[in-house]
Amino acid sequence: MSDLKNASKLVIAPDPEGPDLTRKVEGIDQRGLPLSSQVVEERPLTLYLNSREIVTNMTIGDYPELLAIGFLFNQGMLESGADLKAVQFDAEVEAVSVHTHSKTRYDDKMERATRTSGCAVGTVFGDMREGLRALPVVAESVRTSWLYSLSHQINQMPSLYLSAGAIHGTVLCEGDQPLVYMEDVGRHNAVDKVAGWMVRENVGGADKLLYTTGRLTSEMVLKSVRMGIPVLVSRSGFTAWGVDLAREYGLTLIGRLRGQRFICLSGAERMVFDASLSGGAGEDRS
Amino acid sequence: MSDLKNASKLVIAPDPEGPDLTRKVEGIDQRGLPLSSQVVEERPLTLYLNSREIVTNMTIGDYPELLAIGFLFNQGMLESGADLKAVQFDAEVEAVSVHTHSKTRYDDKMERATRTSGCAVGTVFGDMREGLRALPVVAESVRTSWLYSLSHQINQMPSLYLSAGAIHGTVLCEGDQPLVYMEDVGRHNAVDKVAGWMVRENVGGADKLLYTTGRLTSEMVLKSVRMGIPVLVSRSGFTAWGVDLAREYGLTLIGRLRGQRFICLSGAERMVFDASLSGGAGEDRS
Repeated sequence: MSDLKNASKLVIAPDPEGPDLTRKVEGIDQRGLPLSSQVVEERPLTLYLNSREIVTNMTIGDYPELLAIGFLFNQGMLESGADLKAVQFDAEVEAVSVHTHSKTRYDDKMERATRTSGCAVGTVFGDMREGLRALPVVAESVRTSWLYSLSHQINQMPSLYLSAGAIHGTVLCEGDQPLVYMEDVGRHNAVDKVAGWMVRENVGGADKLLYTTGRLTSEMVLKSVRMGIPVLVSRSGFTAWGVDLAREYGLTLIGRLRGQRFICLSGAERMVFDASLSGGAGEDRS
Repeated sequence: MSDLKNASKLVIAPDPEGPDLTRKVEGIDQRGLPLSSQVVEERPLTLYLNSREIVTNMTIGDYPELLAIGFLFNQGMLESGADLKAVQFDAEVEAVSVHTHSKTRYDDKMERATRTSGCAVGTVFGDMREGLRALPVVAESVRTSWLYSLSHQINQMPSLYLSAGAIHGTVLCEGDQPLVYMEDVGRHNAVDKVAGWMVRENVGGADKLLYTTGRLTSEMVLKSVRMGIPVLVSRSGFTAWGVDLAREYGLTLIGRLRGQRFICLSGAERMVFDASLSGGAGEDRS
C-alpha cells in the first residue's frame, strides 16, 4: 500500500502525545481496585468578534485560532480569510479575539436581532443556511477505492481517538490522501478547525472530500456545503433531515462506511465504483 | 431475572414505532444497488421564554414541552415547576412557548448582557455553574448489581437506537429500575427531556441514578448536578474536566460500563460492590 507516501502528505496530523491534550485520571474498577486512564482534556474557549462576545465552545484546546476562524466562517459571520485583520489567542483568559477589516454581516444581524426580539441564541445558529448555494456536480469525481483507502489510513493513523477515546475526528482529504486531520471533544469543533485551516490557507473545497467519525446531521451537512466540499463521508449513521439537506444542496452523502460496506444517500452521480469487492465481506452496520 | 416486572415500572419508554420519529430513506450500497434504511428524524424546535426567543435546538421532536422545560431548568433559567404558568407547543411553527409566573433570572441576565457586551451566546450557556451546590453523600447508596441489571435492561429494551441508530439515550433510574427513558439526536436533549419530566412531575433526584449512552463531558456532569442526581453512569468514555467537575460537586461518576467492567472516577464512597464477578469477563473498553 501507499500508506507511507500518503502519511507524508499530511499537513496536520493528530497529536496523541500532545502534553496538554490528555491527562492521566485515577479511578477504581469493578473490583474496587485502582485503575488509571489517559483522558482527553476539555476546556472552555470564548470567542470575540470585533470585541463582541459570540460564544463559548468546549474544546480540546489545540488550534484555537483555527477553531475561531472556522466557527465564524461556518456560521456565515466571516466571508473569507482576506477579511481577517487579526486573530489573537489569549491562553490566560481562554479566549480568541478576531478582528475583521469590514463590518461583518454578523454586526448587521445582531443589530436587527436586538431591535426585534432582543438577544436570540437561535438567531446566531439559525441562519446557517443563509447564503448557501448548491454544490456543482462534476461526474465521476469520487472513487470507491479512495473511500476504502482513506478509511483504512484514517483508522490506522495514531490519534487521540486510538490512545484515549471519547473524541471525534474530521479529516479533509484530496483523492485518496488525507490532508488535515483534526480531533476534538465536539465533532462540530473538529469540522470548524478544518474550515479554519481552509479559510486561513485559502484552500478551496471543490476537489476535496470530508471524512468524519460522527453522525451526519443537518449541522454537518450544512457545514460541508458552506465549505464547498461536495463529498461528505462517515463511518456513523445519519438523520433524515441531514439526507434531505444533502439532496437539496447536491452533496454526495455517504454513511456507515465500515469495511467494504456503505450507503450513499445523495449525489451518487459523482461516484465511480472502481473497487473490487470481496464476496460477502464488510462489517455490520451500526 | 426481573426484567418484566421492571419494564412495567417504566413511566416513559422509547417509542421505536413512533410514526413521526423515523422515516425510510433510499440510497445505494457499495455495489451500486438500492438499499433502504429506517432513519431518525431531526427537526428544529425554537424555544421562547416569556415571549423572548432563547434557542433553536435540533431534536427528534417527541416531548417538545419537556425538552423546553428541562432546557430552561438545566440552564438555570427556571427554578421549579411551580413557576410554570403555561407551556405551549405549536407544531406548525415548530416552537415551544414557556411563560413563568415570576420574572425569571434569565430576564435579569439578558438585561445585564445587553447593557454590557450586547448579545452573547456565551452568556446563556456560560452560566451553567451559577447556583450549583455540591451533592450530599449518602454512603452505600449505589450497588454494582444495580449497574449490571440496569445496563442489561436498557441494552435489551426496544428503542430507536436498536431500530434506527444515530441517536443517544438517557435513562432516569431508581435502584435497579428504569423509570424514564428518553432518546434524541442530541444527547443534551435526551437529558433535558428527563429533567423536564422531573420538573413537571416534581420528582427529586436524590435517590436516582442517571444512565446515558453518551460521553461524560462537563455539560453532562453539570446537568446531573443541577438535577440533584448523585450518580451518573455511561457506557462511553469521559473528559478530564468532566471528572474534575464531578469531584468538585461530589458526583459519583462511572464510565465505560461494558459487560462487568467499568471505571468509577469520583464519589466511590457511595458504592457497594455486591455483584459477584466472573473471572476475566467483561467487554473491551471503548
